[in-house]
Amino acid sequence: MHLGYQTMVELYGCDRNLIDDEQIVEKILLELTDLIQLTVVNSVIHHFSPIGVSGVVVIEESHVAIHTWPEHNYVAIDFFTCNEQYDVTKGIAFLKEKFKAEQVETKEITRGSLNTISRIKTKKK
Amino acid sequence: MHLGYQTMVELYGCDRNLIDDEQIVEKILLELTDLIQLTVVNSVIHHFSPIGVSGVVVIEESHVAIHTWPEHNYVAIDFFTCNEQYDVTKGIAFLKEKFKAEQVETKEITRGSLNTISRIKTKKK
Repeated sequence: MHLGYQTMVELYGCDRNLIDDEQIVEKILLELTDLIQLTVVNSVIHHFSPIGVSGVVVIEESHVAIHTWPEHNYVAIDFFTCNEQYDVTKGIAFLKEKFKAEQVETKEITRGSLNTISRIKTKKK
Repeated sequence: MHLGYQTMVELYGCDRNLIDDEQIVEKILLELTDLIQLTVVNSVIHHFSPIGVSGVVVIEESHVAIHTWPEHNYVAIDFFTCNEQYDVTKGIAFLKEKFKAEQVETKEITRGSLNTISRIKTKKK
């Protein structure tokens, strides 16, 4: 059992113009959180000079972060949630379509082992 | 070769009061970015009711994100940077000391394979 679930998504072959527009990227991120019912607390979006966008949405369930490299048609996205009930797969399919990605890769990891937490608490007693 | 480098840090056995105070957490995050010379673009910090803090610092080099579970004395931190020149190890030692963590675990992954990017570009021609 773990406290956090993290999915790291690589979107290759995306539309360069879409992923270099911070208004489009922010709109898509907020549509995404709405689609998979994540509760937005706050968001930050930034366009780099000369190229690229970074955005983070802090959600009640942790965060969604995006970084785009338009010059490489590449987008990195992280979903960090505090339980497994969210349909991240549906979210990834949505992003693939919206950014017109050709190839998607995902990695999943867990965060905060409850076994380790319990072991350290026992040791402290 | 890759576009991004991500280090995921688990801090176990932290001081519960420190990691439940959003002002302390934000101060430590900003000291951290200063220490390892990351350039801050914007930051978001949020205290959850009844307990826990989430914070994200968007940096020129990508982001640093933190989530705390005071009830479990646990903190999750992510460093996402666009090159390997930053001394993340020094940053982790700083966080371990500041949050009084007893145990630290780290995982490192790469993001955005330049081989895959090149292969997709060739296919498109």
